[in-house]
Amino acid sequence: MILNISLAILLIQLQEVVCQCGYKACEKTKDNPVLNIHLVPHTHDDVGWLKTVDQYYYGANNSIQHAGIQYILDSVVGLLQGSSHRKFVYVEMAFFMRWWRQQNEEMRNIIKDLVNKGQLQFAGGGWSQNDEAATHYTAIIDNMAYGMKFLKDTFGDCSRPLVAWQIDVFGHSKEQAALFAMMGFDGVFFARIDAADRLLRKADKRLEGMWHASQSLSSAADLFYGAFYDHYSPPDGFCFDIFCDDQPIQDDQDLLDYNVDERVDTFVKLMKEEAKSFQTNHIMLTMGNDFNYENANEWFKNMDKLLKYVNMKENETNVHVLYSSPACYLYALNQADVTWSSKTDDFFPYGSPFNYWTGFYTSRPALKGYIRIANKVLQTCKQIKAVSGVGADPVALKDAIGIVQHHDAVTGTEKQHVANDYAKRLAIGIDEGQKIENDGIAQLIKINASQPSLQFEFCNNLNISICHVTETLKMFTVTAYNPLAYQVLKYIRLPVNGMHYSIKDPDDNTVKYQVVEVTKATQHVRKQRGNASHELIFPVNIPAVGFSTYTVTMDTVKNKYRNLQTRAVHAGIDDTTISNNHLSLTFDGKTGLLKSIKNMDDDIMLPVRQMFYWYSSSTGDIISDSSSSPYIFRPNGTKPFPVFDTTVNLKVFKSNLFEEVQQEFGPGLSQVIRLYKGQQHAEFEYTVGPIPFKDGLGKEIISRFDTSLKNDGIFYTDSNGRQIMKRRRNHRDTFPYINTDPVAGNYYPINTKIFIKDNNTQLTVVTDRSHGGSSIQDGSLEIMVHRRLLYYDGGEVEALNETGQFGDGLIIRGDLLVTLNPMQIKTFQVQIKRK
Amino acid sequence: MILNISLAILLIQLQEVVCQCGYKACEKTKDNPVLNIHLVPHTHDDVGWLKTVDQYYYGANNSIQHAGIQYILDSVVGLLQGSSHRKFVYVEMAFFMRWWRQQNEEMRNIIKDLVNKGQLQFAGGGWSQNDEAATHYTAIIDNMAYGMKFLKDTFGDCSRPLVAWQIDVFGHSKEQAALFAMMGFDGVFFARIDAADRLLRKADKRLEGMWHASQSLSSAADLFYGAFYDHYSPPDGFCFDIFCDDQPIQDDQDLLDYNVDERVDTFVKLMKEEAKSFQTNHIMLTMGNDFNYENANEWFKNMDKLLKYVNMKENETNVHVLYSSPACYLYALNQADVTWSSKTDDFFPYGSPFNYWTGFYTSRPALKGYIRIANKVLQTCKQIKAVSGVGADPVALKDAIGIVQHHDAVTGTEKQHVANDYAKRLAIGIDEGQKIENDGIAQLIKINASQPSLQFEFCNNLNISICHVTETLKMFTVTAYNPLAYQVLKYIRLPVNGMHYSIKDPDDNTVKYQVVEVTKATQHVRKQRGNASHELIFPVNIPAVGFSTYTVTMDTVKNKYRNLQTRAVHAGIDDTTISNNHLSLTFDGKTGLLKSIKNMDDDIMLPVRQMFYWYSSSTGDIISDSSSSPYIFRPNGTKPFPVFDTTVNLKVFKSNLFEEVQQEFGPGLSQVIRLYKGQQHAEFEYTVGPIPFKDGLGKEIISRFDTSLKNDGIFYTDSNGRQIMKRRRNHRDTFPYINTDPVAGNYYPINTKIFIKDNNTQLTVVTDRSHGGSSIQDGSLEIMVHRRLLYYDGGEVEALNETGQFGDGLIIRGDLLVTLNPMQIKTFQVQIKRK
Repeated sequence: MILNISLAILLIQLQEVVCQCGYKACEKTKDNPVLNIHLVPHTHDDVGWLKTVDQYYYGANNSIQHAGIQYILDSVVGLLQGSSHRKFVYVEMAFFMRWWRQQNEEMRNIIKDLVNKGQLQFAGGGWSQNDEAATHYTAIIDNMAYGMKFLKDTFGDCSRPLVAWQIDVFGHSKEQAALFAMMGFDGVFFARIDAADRLLRKADKRLEGMWHASQSLSSAADLFYGAFYDHYSPPDGFCFDIFCDDQPIQDDQDLLDYNVDERVDTFVKLMKEEAKSFQTNHIMLTMGNDFNYENANEWFKNMDKLLKYVNMKENETNVHVLYSSPACYLYALNQADVTWSSKTDDFFPYGSPFNYWTGFYTSRPALKGYIRIANKVLQTCKQIKAVSGVGADPVALKDAIGIVQHHDAVTGTEKQHVANDYAKRLAIGIDEGQKIENDGIAQLIKINASQPSLQFEFCNNLNISICHVTETLKMFTVTAYNPLAYQVLKYIRLPVNGMHYSIKDPDDNTVKYQVVEVTKATQHVRKQRGNASHELIFPVNIPAVGFSTYTVTMDTVKNKYRNLQTRAVHAGIDDTTISNNHLSLTFDGKTGLLKSIKNMDDDIMLPVRQMFYWYSSSTGDIISDSSSSPYIFRPNGTKPFPVFDTTVNLKVFKSNLFEEVQQEFGPGLSQVIRLYKGQQHAEFEYTVGPIPFKDGLGKEIISRFDTSLKNDGIFYTDSNGRQIMKRRRNHRDTFPYINTDPVAGNYYPINTKIFIKDNNTQLTVVTDRSHGGSSIQDGSLEIMVHRRLLYYDGGEVEALNETGQFGDGLIIRGDLLVTLNPMQIKTFQVQIKRK
Repeated sequence: MILNISLAILLIQLQEVVCQCGYKACEKTKDNPVLNIHLVPHTHDDVGWLKTVDQYYYGANNSIQHAGIQYILDSVVGLLQGSSHRKFVYVEMAFFMRWWRQQNEEMRNIIKDLVNKGQLQFAGGGWSQNDEAATHYTAIIDNMAYGMKFLKDTFGDCSRPLVAWQIDVFGHSKEQAALFAMMGFDGVFFARIDAADRLLRKADKRLEGMWHASQSLSSAADLFYGAFYDHYSPPDGFCFDIFCDDQPIQDDQDLLDYNVDERVDTFVKLMKEEAKSFQTNHIMLTMGNDFNYENANEWFKNMDKLLKYVNMKENETNVHVLYSSPACYLYALNQADVTWSSKTDDFFPYGSPFNYWTGFYTSRPALKGYIRIANKVLQTCKQIKAVSGVGADPVALKDAIGIVQHHDAVTGTEKQHVANDYAKRLAIGIDEGQKIENDGIAQLIKINASQPSLQFEFCNNLNISICHVTETLKMFTVTAYNPLAYQVLKYIRLPVNGMHYSIKDPDDNTVKYQVVEVTKATQHVRKQRGNASHELIFPVNIPAVGFSTYTVTMDTVKNKYRNLQTRAVHAGIDDTTISNNHLSLTFDGKTGLLKSIKNMDDDIMLPVRQMFYWYSSSTGDIISDSSSSPYIFRPNGTKPFPVFDTTVNLKVFKSNLFEEVQQEFGPGLSQVIRLYKGQQHAEFEYTVGPIPFKDGLGKEIISRFDTSLKNDGIFYTDSNGRQIMKRRRNHRDTFPYINTDPVAGNYYPINTKIFIKDNNTQLTVVTDRSHGGSSIQDGSLEIMVHRRLLYYDGGEVEALNETGQFGDGLIIRGDLLVTLNPMQIKTFQVQIKRK
């Protein structure tokens, strides 16, 4: 195998720093042959995981996990004051802001002083240390912006994080690297990369290198990256936290157990071994771990001694220890005249044989969907606020959106009660965001029409046909806002209890509509929370960055604008076809499954069979005790089973506005495939759950499209909804692939789309939330839509409760938009310019 | 039942304090009806237990137990600086001295300032928080003196502990209270008293009272005492240590989980309940626990809030919280005009039904013996140093002696590796002490005789017939020092390999001697560590506070000074009698057991049968899961079994210097009963162990003397080797006795003696170390000599290894000195006067 690693002389282009902190605060290091050991005191503080973010902040519920950020920051600041040599790096602004708000003026001045002297440095500086697989780039930007704005507003330029710090994130995306580069970071460090990749990199001294993170942006998106020698914990035997049992440095000769000589010798030996994997005479030691430094004294007291006694022997050992930071370490690397390897792919998937972390791409799909919706509210309310000039800063929503980008939030790897807390925060944030939207649009309407101020109701549960206003009122207006830069045509579906309506568009033209029964699947999900018998469907046209208001009035008699009746057709021997002006979909008469898609504009037709399957989750076996978990996807075999029959009953509806097929696969699985007039995609609305588990098997449900495309193992996924990544089955670009996990090892994160193509045709599936997916067989394209595991930590992974007004997480309703195009990809790149 | 509780109006006589600290540093409290809650921040730091004292100090071996005193003291001092209201009480000087030595001048000044302001107060102030059951009063005094001298020398009068602090000690002795009173303490506080006693005291508001701790010293030994409401931990739900999971006080209304109202309400309710058991409007809360305050910030941050929010509601709740100390609490009690109950007995035994802590009176008897020997070296070397005017301060020995008085040291409740550490420290200390003795005596000899300086060998293993010098040299001198205030006659036994010797006393007179074979039991214990075939026995006369030197020369031929041969007589049908000029002991011809003792001086004779028995240790049963443990004695039944036969083979030796009977009870148990010419007691030298355990039963071995004395359930034990306590079987002086544990509940600590008597006769047994003992049946007197438990913490209790040069702890060799006297007790009281 030829590895695609190109070497080039690349110097890291470090930013100019405007104050006396930053790189100027770094301690002088020693020249070769002295080995410089950069101790980087740090704490890794999950913004929610086993406990909620506020429980972590306060140190509440310590019976679950002992961790209290307030104490960590109190303690660290106290110890930094003790010696000007000591440094500390803090990362998660969601916590830092909570703490900062509670400090008095005196303490704030102390902290500012520590920041200005470069003793307290920030790395990353996002609200949370965001996941890179299941996050949308707009949310990543907001997460980083909210944290860094807090820093700049509070401390000024001295606090600017120079280095990104993604140490615990479960794999690393190319788009994240591009964003970091464009945000002005000089490098990124992380721990979790593929085990085989790490082995090879250690052997080749390629743990650190230069990442060309965007082809289109070229060097503007180049970023230095460093993968750690091992994990982000300290070297074995040198953890001095209250959570550790390593021996302290006992330097009192009058007491028993004096151990300085042994400790120094062990340390020097470890460092010389580690140095073999690095190019320069510098090593960074991450002196900290999860929720460490609750008593910073234990760390600094022992590190002070380590420094003192190791450096005492420097002439003999050629090993020099200093307090440092990620930025100072990077600064030292920059001064070394070495050639860095270059990289153009990403770091997905993360894992090792039988232990691929590709389950979290899909875990907690209800929460993943809710996060995407909340992010849309944030993006929209920011826009409306800007356009209207009114409305407060959506701080609760920004806080929530930042928090849920955390790598144990959107990933679905948090505990159930924490997922509930995230949903609650999103709900509170959405309420706040929608109040801003309300005020903004009311203001715009007022400017336009001198109306009195308006109070909108937001129908947040249309996905399960609940909206109190439309269910009960006989007359109401519908205002739809379009944040996009181009006019859109959308179909609105409102839960109603009438059969006949008059609908007027903003120009008082009458609008065509349809009324259809609420499906049984929807009734099952909504439970008693709504009572609409029908859904009212009509098209809305909304201008770019604007809104349209439609007036809906219930009619007591039938009117002509619902002139075409829907009709139900039970599937029989003959094939069924639905179509609009762009696409037509044909369903097999025998199986009821999708059979082919035709693009009528371009006159291309593709056989496409769509079906649901499930992988049986491994609970560990003789090869490995790894089980499918919120993190890991490990199917118990390579072949998925059909869910549940390979034939399905159909209901077909056809009208002048849309045509659709309803498929009932049995209890817990149904799908509506719909073509709206004027839309260039087909909508696949699936409802999955609760996944049955009485057979004792965990199940991971996929939606699979089997086509005749000859994609030769190649498929494409997006990177955080922005770049497109080319994936090849059973292959890694830069290290040998060992095919131990034919399914899980080929899974990649999908944020918004996955596609396969041949020379002529491309089939694209666009998703409404993040998933894991792959092309396990040629011509196939699969998306994991839901998973229910039985054997994780005594509980089940999936069970997002109603907290957060989002419905029942045991049942997932999602949308896939499927398009068939002639072969041509358009990729839009939004460039963020540095000043 | 009429309880013997006398009430009297007793005001606590508080000491005058010479500086602005002490009681003058106490915060003002509120008058009735406001309830004052005295928060007393404290840490209970065992001077060795699961880890060694230095492991605890440094925080080493944290995998065994997380605890590091250096960090506790660092942290507390930092937090006390944060607010002048905060107080802290520290107790164990063995730790405090270790820490103090490592502080720089700047930190020392900070600490001094905290002491002078009364923020950092000391309670107890002994080197360790000494046990009160198994300790000798001379060692208690040294333990307290060494700690308090350190305080006085370091900080001056402001550091003087006003209150003794025995919070974790397993029962409380009267002599300890008398010593505390005479040392100038104004009161003592503790947690562990009999459960029934506590219940009644809570109901009667008698947890606090006045202890008349010595009849002979009268009010000079009166001491206020306070038993805690519960344990020495904080009230349920209000522990803010890193070891606790209680909810912090979450007072940020902008974060989720705000809980101030709930926390305040819960606290106030708890306090009002607790107040019902106390006489005054003051309650002391012990805010701390074992090894707490490693991060003092978590404590003080939350206690600050507790103070703030509870006191905010003071007008509504009548509850006021303040930072306080044991001394300040006592000061507040003193200002309250209340009548205290009075007490004249002690607090032994400690426990509750099926859970009597009377096992530790005997646990690790080898260590207990070694501690007594080391204490003798300390007392003697101090005396020789004073008399000779040369020699350093025996700091290592004082350190060791203080440490081993700790309530998990001499008690035998520590782990094996910790017992090894104690023995090692004692060995180091004894070496140091003997060096001082060497130099002192050498100096005295020089003064007397202008000899060149001498280097003595100390024969520390004569108990198992090992002494390199006497085994190998053909000529040597023996110098014996007598620290007592009167001349003594002692018999010396030296391991030798000759049969004939010339021995000269200091006046060059020839001394009579005997040579006897080293017994098999002794050979078994000494193993290969010595090779003497015989023991050389001769009497020495030593003047008061002086020494005598004897010259020993091996003769190649028989000489007349060993003119009477020993003779061995095997027991037959006839009784055997041994006697000296004072006593005669008769052994039953059939059983081989002691049958009677006669005091020939006073012409009284008492039938006495002496025999070994064993109790089978409970490992928990249906009534209670309490098992016999290092702490607890819980026999599995009330009748002990004979060890091992009720008949025994005898060997009888008679000579002009001594007569003795050797009893072989089988493997692991033998005894020599010996009468030396001129001695008024019989010596019972028993050798027990290894105790067989292949039957799966833990065994607790007793030596029992059955007599015809009608002692009516009354027996007497000493209190720390000084006062005599009258004990009555199945009875407590001040609360109802429930006879759930007929054996263990009647056990009391013996430091030096136990006796029973009737109107005419008294049988006294003097011990060479601490034991537990009782008079379970009328006329009987039993002493537990050894115990081997199988079911404690997966290991065995007994196994003091050779560390400490003391032989094998699995085998115990002890001495009981038995005297028979006409009824008259002489008790000597040494009075310690306050200035």
